[in-house]
Amino acid sequence: MDKDIFVKLLQQRQYKAVRSILDVMNEVDIALLLSELEDKELAIAFRLIPKDKAAEVFSNMDSTMQSYLVQIFTEKELKELLDALYMDDTVDMLEELPANLVSRILDSVSAADRVKINELLNYPADSAGSIMTTEYVDLRKNMTVAQSMAHIKETGIHKETIYTCYVTERRKLIGTVSAKELMTEDDNMRIEELMETELISVRTHTDKEDVARIFRKYDLIALPVLDEGDLLVGIVTFDDAMDVMVEEATEDITKMAAMSPSEKPYFATSVFEQARHRIPWLLVLMFASIVTGTILTKYENAFSAIPLLVAFIPMLMDTGGNCGSQSSTLVIRGLALNEIQFKDFFRVVFKEFRISLIVGAVLAIANGIRVLVQYQNIALAVVIALSLVGTVVISKLIGCMLPMFASRIHLDPAIMASPLITTLVDTFSILIYFNIATLLFNL
Amino acid sequence: MDKDIFVKLLQQRQYKAVRSILDVMNEVDIALLLSELEDKELAIAFRLIPKDKAAEVFSNMDSTMQSYLVQIFTEKELKELLDALYMDDTVDMLEELPANLVSRILDSVSAADRVKINELLNYPADSAGSIMTTEYVDLRKNMTVAQSMAHIKETGIHKETIYTCYVTERRKLIGTVSAKELMTEDDNMRIEELMETELISVRTHTDKEDVARIFRKYDLIALPVLDEGDLLVGIVTFDDAMDVMVEEATEDITKMAAMSPSEKPYFATSVFEQARHRIPWLLVLMFASIVTGTILTKYENAFSAIPLLVAFIPMLMDTGGNCGSQSSTLVIRGLALNEIQFKDFFRVVFKEFRISLIVGAVLAIANGIRVLVQYQNIALAVVIALSLVGTVVISKLIGCMLPMFASRIHLDPAIMASPLITTLVDTFSILIYFNIATLLFNL
Repeated sequence: MDKDIFVKLLQQRQYKAVRSILDVMNEVDIALLLSELEDKELAIAFRLIPKDKAAEVFSNMDSTMQSYLVQIFTEKELKELLDALYMDDTVDMLEELPANLVSRILDSVSAADRVKINELLNYPADSAGSIMTTEYVDLRKNMTVAQSMAHIKETGIHKETIYTCYVTERRKLIGTVSAKELMTEDDNMRIEELMETELISVRTHTDKEDVARIFRKYDLIALPVLDEGDLLVGIVTFDDAMDVMVEEATEDITKMAAMSPSEKPYFATSVFEQARHRIPWLLVLMFASIVTGTILTKYENAFSAIPLLVAFIPMLMDTGGNCGSQSSTLVIRGLALNEIQFKDFFRVVFKEFRISLIVGAVLAIANGIRVLVQYQNIALAVVIALSLVGTVVISKLIGCMLPMFASRIHLDPAIMASPLITTLVDTFSILIYFNIATLLFNL
Repeated sequence: MDKDIFVKLLQQRQYKAVRSILDVMNEVDIALLLSELEDKELAIAFRLIPKDKAAEVFSNMDSTMQSYLVQIFTEKELKELLDALYMDDTVDMLEELPANLVSRILDSVSAADRVKINELLNYPADSAGSIMTTEYVDLRKNMTVAQSMAHIKETGIHKETIYTCYVTERRKLIGTVSAKELMTEDDNMRIEELMETELISVRTHTDKEDVARIFRKYDLIALPVLDEGDLLVGIVTFDDAMDVMVEEATEDITKMAAMSPSEKPYFATSVFEQARHRIPWLLVLMFASIVTGTILTKYENAFSAIPLLVAFIPMLMDTGGNCGSQSSTLVIRGLALNEIQFKDFFRVVFKEFRISLIVGAVLAIANGIRVLVQYQNIALAVVIALSLVGTVVISKLIGCMLPMFASRIHLDPAIMASPLITTLVDTFSILIYFNIATLLFNL
């Protein structure tokens, strides 16, 4: 939908046309379209959205738009909205709203819902509890398929997903039944005969990254969440797991580039926030690389005697850094996807060692020949070639070992990525280079 | 399940116990357990898996195990397996198997299936067509809810998902109905009244990365795939979209660390393959950084006069590289998630410019004071501080601009990540540093 046409229709009060447009649009697209409107237009447009779509459009809006709407809603409008919102979307919204609006909302919900909301708000930000919803289909083992279908017909419309149903006994989860089975099995079959008892579940405090991994491993639509006492307290749905997967990848990528991760998109963070996320690591790395510089001054005699030696410093430092990044990146990603574990330590190190010998040899030959042709100096070519092999081997070993050590001591391996590795490897490449040079040139 | 106990039971031919264990295990876990067995044990164990689980276990195995089993299966076993496998899993398997086994399989399926399989195999590897399945629930607009449910009861068991049903008219897609609606709406309601006509669909040749993005944007369970003539030819299900999302993040991360991406996990690639994926970029970057070295030799007089100048080269190069990586990483990820587009070019550049001024100032002050205290040399402190500001600004600008240019000319922005940026930025930091030094020290 073209924004300009939409705004023109709004301004001309052609509400019938606006309503027809909103009627055929998808909720996600409506939220996107509305995000481009001025506050006043937003208020009018939101009220023209068909009733059955309004809540989903609302849950797809960002918190600024949500705040504005909650502020201007009448008591009745707010109640209607909260009734239609799923519990996890309500909680997501509350986490972002200013305090006065939060209390306005908590005043508008029923006492029972208020208790539930407060419980959900109390789960740690990275836990399964924080992304779960409390609305699921609850069955009993002695129901028949037909009874279950009747139960879903009555209550299902208010559940975020009805495609996995949970069989409970005194609130304990004893089995699951898929809607597919209910739809394809005989009406008189009892749930007990149908239900899956090999249960895959998580706890309220399970890390949401692990939740996402389980979703992907088992291709789930929903995953039950149990409390300490094994009681079923909620479910996580696949759409939230998908978001976690993407967020976690972004977080890893951000950390790997020496920044504090931000949950907000690029344009939603201010210049100062961005600077604050970037400066700490830069400072640490800057002072760390001073060590390399200090070591360099120790070889003043060497590069005073042969100034050409300085010309190869950037090449060796960069190559070391790049080789180290390659290894650390693969290991970090492997650890994140559970393809590599700490028990594989020696296997990884041995593999990287063999790879580094091949890579080092190829780079050494290529650059050795280049130096020989350019400077007609065999000794220099040998120094460069040997330094390259040494740098590649050391940097690949450091690159693969550090992330594994980090995972061992429960640090995030992602912080052991390129920038830190590069800084460490720099020192080694300078040491290797000048020691070989000093030796071969008798400096 | 403990592997050793399982193997012991197999060896003691306690098949009843093995069958009971397999009976209560999840298909994904069975595939994992079987992957640790020897070929002979694998053959026995696979035949002990309950019939209704065998196909799903099989589709969760890697291609080596699948090859082995296809080889030893009787004609009857193979037919049973192929009947139970979903079309997309069959195609996935065929893409990995050796030619002789592929023809064995194609001989075992019906002529109609063979045509379908060949069609699916012909779609490009990164397209929606390559990950779709042709098994979906097909409804007519004049069916009632009750009729639709009866239709699903009859045919649904063989469909990969029944949770979104497709309403077609002469093979053209005219609407979708969710299983949730079928389960909660009145039995006599007609599909036409219920169906969603705001269709979200892709083409067979749509890039699978875009498919994954659409899934995430609209929280879909399945997405219809249309051919050139607008006919419905298949659907992509959310589990495949989830895999694509994770694969694409891995691919980006790998490219960002200057490697060719591999579709296989770390341990599944040989040492030679790994070396082959890593060497090309290393060679390019190594020769690129020789430029920096050559520029360095131009300032021989400067560092012969003041050898201490060399000590700051690693620090400036590293800081420039790190600053550039931060910006390029954020922009690359933003582009991948569609949070940043090329039309935001000037907004991004202006934002990064302001950030770089803050970051540069902080680093310059910190390091300037350090130099002043350590060397009691005001001129040197000023040179370092000014060089830092210049390096940070230039590297952040290069870091944010290159990925955007790449996206503009339809190159993958991920290749414009840290390693390439670092190499480019090195040259600039050396130029800035020695020009400022030459000027201020009158060299």
